[in-house]
Amino acid sequence: MPELCVTNGTIITMDPQGTVIEGGMLCMEGGRITYCGPASSAPPGTGRVLDARGGLILPGLINGHTHAAMTLMRGLADDLPLDVWLNQHIFPAERHLTPEAVYWGSLLACLEMVKSGTTSFCDMYLFAPQVARAADQAGLRAVVGEVIYDFPSAGYGELESGLRLTQELIARYADHSRVQGAVMPHALYTCSRPLMERAGQISADTGAAMNIHLAENAGETAVVLEKWHQRPLDVLASLGLLNGRLWIDHGVDLSQGEIERLAAAGARVAHCPESNMKLANGIAPLHDMLAAGVKVGLGTDGCASNNDLDLFGEMDTCAKLAKASRLDPTAAPAPEVLALCTRRGAAAFGRPDDLGLLAVGALADLIVVDVDQPQFTPLYNPLSHLVYVARGGDVLHTVCHGRVLMEDRRVESLDEAEVLARAREQAAALTGRRAA
Amino acid sequence: MPELCVTNGTIITMDPQGTVIEGGMLCMEGGRITYCGPASSAPPGTGRVLDARGGLILPGLINGHTHAAMTLMRGLADDLPLDVWLNQHIFPAERHLTPEAVYWGSLLACLEMVKSGTTSFCDMYLFAPQVARAADQAGLRAVVGEVIYDFPSAGYGELESGLRLTQELIARYADHSRVQGAVMPHALYTCSRPLMERAGQISADTGAAMNIHLAENAGETAVVLEKWHQRPLDVLASLGLLNGRLWIDHGVDLSQGEIERLAAAGARVAHCPESNMKLANGIAPLHDMLAAGVKVGLGTDGCASNNDLDLFGEMDTCAKLAKASRLDPTAAPAPEVLALCTRRGAAAFGRPDDLGLLAVGALADLIVVDVDQPQFTPLYNPLSHLVYVARGGDVLHTVCHGRVLMEDRRVESLDEAEVLARAREQAAALTGRRAA
Repeated sequence: MPELCVTNGTIITMDPQGTVIEGGMLCMEGGRITYCGPASSAPPGTGRVLDARGGLILPGLINGHTHAAMTLMRGLADDLPLDVWLNQHIFPAERHLTPEAVYWGSLLACLEMVKSGTTSFCDMYLFAPQVARAADQAGLRAVVGEVIYDFPSAGYGELESGLRLTQELIARYADHSRVQGAVMPHALYTCSRPLMERAGQISADTGAAMNIHLAENAGETAVVLEKWHQRPLDVLASLGLLNGRLWIDHGVDLSQGEIERLAAAGARVAHCPESNMKLANGIAPLHDMLAAGVKVGLGTDGCASNNDLDLFGEMDTCAKLAKASRLDPTAAPAPEVLALCTRRGAAAFGRPDDLGLLAVGALADLIVVDVDQPQFTPLYNPLSHLVYVARGGDVLHTVCHGRVLMEDRRVESLDEAEVLARAREQAAALTGRRAA
Repeated sequence: MPELCVTNGTIITMDPQGTVIEGGMLCMEGGRITYCGPASSAPPGTGRVLDARGGLILPGLINGHTHAAMTLMRGLADDLPLDVWLNQHIFPAERHLTPEAVYWGSLLACLEMVKSGTTSFCDMYLFAPQVARAADQAGLRAVVGEVIYDFPSAGYGELESGLRLTQELIARYADHSRVQGAVMPHALYTCSRPLMERAGQISADTGAAMNIHLAENAGETAVVLEKWHQRPLDVLASLGLLNGRLWIDHGVDLSQGEIERLAAAGARVAHCPESNMKLANGIAPLHDMLAAGVKVGLGTDGCASNNDLDLFGEMDTCAKLAKASRLDPTAAPAPEVLALCTRRGAAAFGRPDDLGLLAVGALADLIVVDVDQPQFTPLYNPLSHLVYVARGGDVLHTVCHGRVLMEDRRVESLDEAEVLARAREQAAALTGRRAA
């Protein structure tokens, strides 16, 4: 007997065959899908029922790279040169970070993700145990890591504590159904060789992913060449870190040879088009990465450089930027872009088999998009509308691991008013600015 | 005694001083603003009152270039080479256009615009009298023209009829408070010299704007060079058409000299970043046009190449694309981009004095954005959130010419369910495809 069913919608399964089921029904139990097919053939018994109201039922979206608690710095400083933005605005605010700030900032991000249809995210930040706590409480799926670097951290103090914290986080969530820890050195320009070696060892010992900002722009490459005398990916390869656990964020300044090596290693890339555009990092070689078979997912990056967590908007920008940058209107077609946040994004997320698609046995992570609105009318091709029209605000229901997180735009897993109020308090305390 | 007041919000006036009024109130009468200031100082008497519920009150947005009725072809064909898209999908559908299809397609577009905060638009299409009728009925402000070209049109037949129709449209709406006619030759590659001369004469005789697709991409320039032996802007200049009535759409392939001549002539440009990206036209020189003082507004283009009419999304893309294309994070800052859809967009729209800003005496066109949502939290800088976070679905109230078109997301000027149903019927008839 299923615990939950979703009915009266068109199921966009995102399976490899691209199956679409009109008049579909999905049933789930124990966090997994037990039925996915026409409502007319569904077995009897439903448990709780969510009415999709004729909308589109699709896998919950996957955000491959963010810093959830940076919601607290959303819109604090825009349109500035990178060094002014970082050194005069972001870093000073981060020096005042507290566990409470990270907890409430992360909950605010989780609230935004639940409401905009994201059910899985990968997060790198300070006070990572608070991020994990928030993700768990919100009912979301997450890979979480403490950002580590050479200099003392507001989160953990000296490096030794950071490495210990990373190990504890991985151990603590080893058997959790939705949350996992990972190893997260910040970047090659903020991490030393010993740090990278020890981080790599933890990843090798535990099997946890190693997530790092890499090749974000040509300036980074120049700094890494100066410091390490190798290009960023060569540094990782020399350290023995170019493998299937590697998960790089941005991947803008990559050569064709580097792309092929990422593919051969089974390494993963979080493509962050909106953040890359806003910070003027350059344009990542999405087409070449996909052609080479790299495991690519889409990431919003943090809200200080985007400024939201809406993966629908990110997909639209991703598709259009690929066309503009290649002067090719056939680049990044809608089904390929939707896959970056679902099936293909799941491979980048480290769960290629049971995440990012709707099928019997897969994880019960799904959302429903309300298409009975002017901007979705007429509807010839659901995948086109999901990429080029839909926005987070169009999500009706959100389910993760078989639990209803939102029904009819009302969030069940969090107290929305409390999260907004507490996040506003924390933002004001962090920045010393009134934040309405 | 005002007929309508909007209270309990922060007024983003978009006046040249960038005035922002917290706890503001706006009153209006006879289609114009009679009070704009703190609620505490407002004169007694209110008429009908809209509660902004703590949101942002800003000028209604201005869409400088669209083809409203192409909503009927939204998502019909994406991710295709331009010639396949046009010749195999768009043109065949347009051959079946009827006045009824254009009317309901335009009403669908108006419904989407009312809901997403656009109160003014410039439209080029077939059966333009139906577009004007729809805009008037929806309560929106519009500049409307019949698209004319050398070959027979489904809208008017032979060219003579098209020129006559243009003159009639301009005359019919000469004294209308919201709708105006204009002269709209399609493009230099579809219009002959005699056509352009006669179109220019109508514009000169009536003072109506002349709107034309120009310099949309390098391919167009090549075709125009072949046909006219001059670059597109030189053709217009030779014909005596480079003046303050000229209003070009796209303006991608422009040299610095051409930009300076546009500025000197007081000509206007509708910048369409999302359509230019999706069709892979290239990236328009926004920064150079603004630096030269060209009257630039923002346009969505039609829904067959965008695929929505959401100017909030267009602003976000505009700001990010400018940064990415110049590798400069300070390019196109939020206040400058918001001006493209308000004060500066009004100049491009041909109403520089009383449109696109909130001030006593200005036209009473305004919208309210609901910021009591996770993605707007915290709120340090309203202009940042309006460009980088807000989407059409965040609009609460829409007022045009002092009339409430939407209150609390409920449209008053149109029957939403009827428009959706009739537009679906027309879309199916037009394309022969079931359009849910």
